[in-house]
Amino acid sequence: MNTITLLISCKDQKGIIANVTNFIHNQDGNIVYVDQHVDREQEIFFMRTESEFSGNDFNLETFKAEFNKTIASAFDMKWRIYTSIEKAKMALFVSKYDHCLYDILGRYNSGELNVEIPFIISNHKDLKPIANSFNIPFYYIPVTKDIKNEAEEKQLKLLEEHKVNFIVLARYMQIVSDKLINKFPNKIINIHHSFLPAFVGAKPYHSAYKRGVKIIGATSHYVTEELDAGPIIEQDVTSVSHTHSIHDLIAKGRDLEKIVLSNAIKLHLNRKVMVYNNKTVIFS
Amino acid sequence: MNTITLLISCKDQKGIIANVTNFIHNQDGNIVYVDQHVDREQEIFFMRTESEFSGNDFNLETFKAEFNKTIASAFDMKWRIYTSIEKAKMALFVSKYDHCLYDILGRYNSGELNVEIPFIISNHKDLKPIANSFNIPFYYIPVTKDIKNEAEEKQLKLLEEHKVNFIVLARYMQIVSDKLINKFPNKIINIHHSFLPAFVGAKPYHSAYKRGVKIIGATSHYVTEELDAGPIIEQDVTSVSHTHSIHDLIAKGRDLEKIVLSNAIKLHLNRKVMVYNNKTVIFS
Amino acid sequence: MNTITLLISCKDQKGIIANVTNFIHNQDGNIVYVDQHVDREQEIFFMRTESEFSGNDFNLETFKAEFNKTIASAFDMKWRIYTSIEKAKMALFVSKYDHCLYDILGRYNSGELNVEIPFIISNHKDLKPIANSFNIPFYYIPVTKDIKNEAEEKQLKLLEEHKVNFIVLARYMQIVSDKLINKFPNKIINIHHSFLPAFVGAKPYHSAYKRGVKIIGATSHYVTEELDAGPIIEQDVTSVSHTHSIHDLIAKGRDLEKIVLSNAIKLHLNRKVMVYNNKTVIFS
Amino acid sequence: MNTITLLISCKDQKGIIANVTNFIHNQDGNIVYVDQHVDREQEIFFMRTESEFSGNDFNLETFKAEFNKTIASAFDMKWRIYTSIEKAKMALFVSKYDHCLYDILGRYNSGELNVEIPFIISNHKDLKPIANSFNIPFYYIPVTKDIKNEAEEKQLKLLEEHKVNFIVLARYMQIVSDKLINKFPNKIINIHHSFLPAFVGAKPYHSAYKRGVKIIGATSHYVTEELDAGPIIEQDVTSVSHTHSIHDLIAKGRDLEKIVLSNAIKLHLNRKVMVYNNKTVIFS
Repeated sequence: MNTITLLISCKDQKGIIANVTNFIHNQDGNIVYVDQHVDREQEIFFMRTESEFSGNDFNLETFKAEFNKTIASAFDMKWRIYTSIEKAKMALFVSKYDHCLYDILGRYNSGELNVEIPFIISNHKDLKPIANSFNIPFYYIPVTKDIKNEAEEKQLKLLEEHKVNFIVLARYMQIVSDKLINKFPNKIINIHHSFLPAFVGAKPYHSAYKRGVKIIGATSHYVTEELDAGPIIEQDVTSVSHTHSIHDLIAKGRDLEKIVLSNAIKLHLNRKVMVYNNKTVIFS
Repeated sequence: MNTITLLISCKDQKGIIANVTNFIHNQDGNIVYVDQHVDREQEIFFMRTESEFSGNDFNLETFKAEFNKTIASAFDMKWRIYTSIEKAKMALFVSKYDHCLYDILGRYNSGELNVEIPFIISNHKDLKPIANSFNIPFYYIPVTKDIKNEAEEKQLKLLEEHKVNFIVLARYMQIVSDKLINKFPNKIINIHHSFLPAFVGAKPYHSAYKRGVKIIGATSHYVTEELDAGPIIEQDVTSVSHTHSIHDLIAKGRDLEKIVLSNAIKLHLNRKVMVYNNKTVIFS
Repeated sequence: MNTITLLISCKDQKGIIANVTNFIHNQDGNIVYVDQHVDREQEIFFMRTESEFSGNDFNLETFKAEFNKTIASAFDMKWRIYTSIEKAKMALFVSKYDHCLYDILGRYNSGELNVEIPFIISNHKDLKPIANSFNIPFYYIPVTKDIKNEAEEKQLKLLEEHKVNFIVLARYMQIVSDKLINKFPNKIINIHHSFLPAFVGAKPYHSAYKRGVKIIGATSHYVTEELDAGPIIEQDVTSVSHTHSIHDLIAKGRDLEKIVLSNAIKLHLNRKVMVYNNKTVIFS
Repeated sequence: MNTITLLISCKDQKGIIANVTNFIHNQDGNIVYVDQHVDREQEIFFMRTESEFSGNDFNLETFKAEFNKTIASAFDMKWRIYTSIEKAKMALFVSKYDHCLYDILGRYNSGELNVEIPFIISNHKDLKPIANSFNIPFYYIPVTKDIKNEAEEKQLKLLEEHKVNFIVLARYMQIVSDKLINKFPNKIINIHHSFLPAFVGAKPYHSAYKRGVKIIGATSHYVTEELDAGPIIEQDVTSVSHTHSIHDLIAKGRDLEKIVLSNAIKLHLNRKVMVYNNKTVIFS
């Protein structure tokens, strides 16, 4: 059995659902999941289907060509398709904090994440022993103002060599340049340690402490050129009080960060996320 | 424009989604919402669609007959259909607590609930002034062991006269008999002041206090013959600590109860709930 | 029995707790609650005690004089004292939204709030019937640019005549002037319909929708001269998704707003809030 | 500087707080934290203080003897005292699940937990590589009906040899016998994968799925003779829906389990927990 995930968006119009489901049905696919969303203000239609095809008869390229010709062109669709056979390749970028890295690798190790991790990149050597203990190659690529370009070239070379599909910034403490962002549009997942759009930028826990908020948060989003302003994938919060020092906020925040980031990775991996207008549709 | 909501369940099989959406499309309906669920263990398929039909051409009875003949019978479906023109009739049963009643009537008054409330029934007179201030008829029907049967006859008479569609027990402190339950299957919504299945029955806050739980909850469910064991519609919880007395738990619980109950009413009113195997499918 | 609540702040120094508790003990008070907090960065000490005194022997003025002379002056304290006999007077300011008003009055009516509500002020007539149904005087004081000063004079006159202790802006859609704020420092409680500091100012749900956040919130705070920037008393949040329209966010937000505002009122009423550096200490 | 944590409980009576704080003050201690609780139903008083003493002058044994003679005996107190110099010793018991183990060891490694972990015991060999990668001795002690006694003797021997202070069952899939429980009263911390008291015993996620709850939880508690009925330290919950399979519930539950267990460990380590009547007082 091969499970095909199809993601579609186009201008909202009559007959899309019937036509798409009918097409899959006629191709002998069994639709096991369908969800759809319409942005009524923008009049944009979104749809996600999962369909099972028996392995022998099914030819992906034929399916794609046929779908493009008969359906996608008729409705002027943007669409993406994935098969359950492919395994995505995810690169991890880290610095010195280890809590997100442990969380991701622990899940990876226990089979919770259906992904390959070809390597970990870091601008510090601190977390190399963790990479080693999970048998994942670790590349130390220092970044300073003077060698930022050079460092990025090294990163890009590794990403290309390993045919990486998406990047996870697991508390990577460097701003990623437009060059990388443009090569991986909506494919770089960051974890920001605040409830965005509150406390953009550096030291959000310090700002939260100063402002005296009663709840802190963490936000996982796709990286865009504007800092901490990309499409939000997942957020979570926890209660705090005057009794918590900045140190306490940081500690409580770590637990949010790692869970929120791992949840965002899972949503991305399961092709549940569609991006438009700097927002996300998250199919459940 | 008339919006038609169609709820379907049947044995899971190939082609349901394509056939249903195609049928609606061919009837000149514009599908604006579709969601579906499959219980893989039980192999049961569930689906909810909303479709817009232009008022002039659309005939509900023709649609129903045609759907029954061509689709429902082919897949051996159970199905229900609602039009946006009908307004449901909801009866409220209360006793002495007023927080849920105020919450429901406040929403009703501000237009948040698209429902008619033909009357309020109570086994106490205490809340009559509230009913009066919202201009809703209030029937005082006392209930004691000796006159329980008689009281229920009065209730049933009112429910029938007013063609009530569903009943909300807004902290009604009497156990509803099988007779009423059988006349309103999955149509009596109760709010239980605990996180079910914990603390079934009387005085759940006292039990929660005694057990020393760190979180309390409230649960809205359909009433079935077994006490507090019906299909759960909505639940919510809040943190508590050793500093909270039973009195505090009751006060914190009131805020949960009223929000959870009102949310359950809205889900029911919007035909988002399907029941099977004593569980619910809640379409979002 | 008379319960005395004592709130203290001063520079952190050795011996405060021992001296204060000893003083109360020597005055024949039974300390039933003590909580304290130290801001280690600012080196400020905060303390709250509740003590029971037998009604016959206790003289508040003597206690205050004695405390001032022996303790407060020695530690250079700021302090406030309240007795359980006094009942606070709370004025409500509203506009057109009724959900917070219903929530507050429902609690007031059922005895949950130990407070007097001498009147409700509004710049619209819409909510007068609700005030009437709870038998609370309602003053319609329209506010436009031209008559803002005049309107405020009327408000102040009413507040003074009725010896109001604090003001609750229950979705009052006018900006309160410095004049009023200065007369009621940390005594005007507002509810802002966002998770501050995110989405300050007008139409926060529209901004939240546009930004595509996955969680929305509400914040109750004391009003200061800077808009939506005063000390935060209470916050809460709820999950949202792409399926929620702006209208849905507003509806979900209403449930947050009313509970958060009522919780803030209760904290204020129970003298659990201390303010410093534009933040709050909330004793539990 | 030596920080002394003092935990006290006794029958509620007048003058306790004043006498204790005065005693510490007179011993030249600087009280930096005091919190107290009274169970009004049972008339039991609880108190926790942290006090700083300058290292040179302070003698713990003298302090204890003096406190016992003058205060503890006068009020008939139960009391415990800890110094910041001692580091607690925590033994970990695991089976096959690794998520709690990774979470604890990750925190341990990054210095978040001020504790020694002398060893890990397991009835399976699966997690030995994780123990190795963190350089913690791992003892494989298989448990079957026939050798349960023998296995427990081995466990006890290790616990005694290493002077272990408390035990954490990090998803240890064996029932611990009374012998061990009695040697470590309120010193064995378990994580149960449900929102207790709902779903006691085996396979709680299966039961939650069957009951159709909308929220699942995890509970950390001290182990007592009755299964899953010990004093609750910490609980947390997360939302679920009909879309989640049992497998999904288990995956979501893992994230709850590890955070809840680690939080409980931190509360225990920081001596914030007092137990009475099978409940806990958790000082914040």
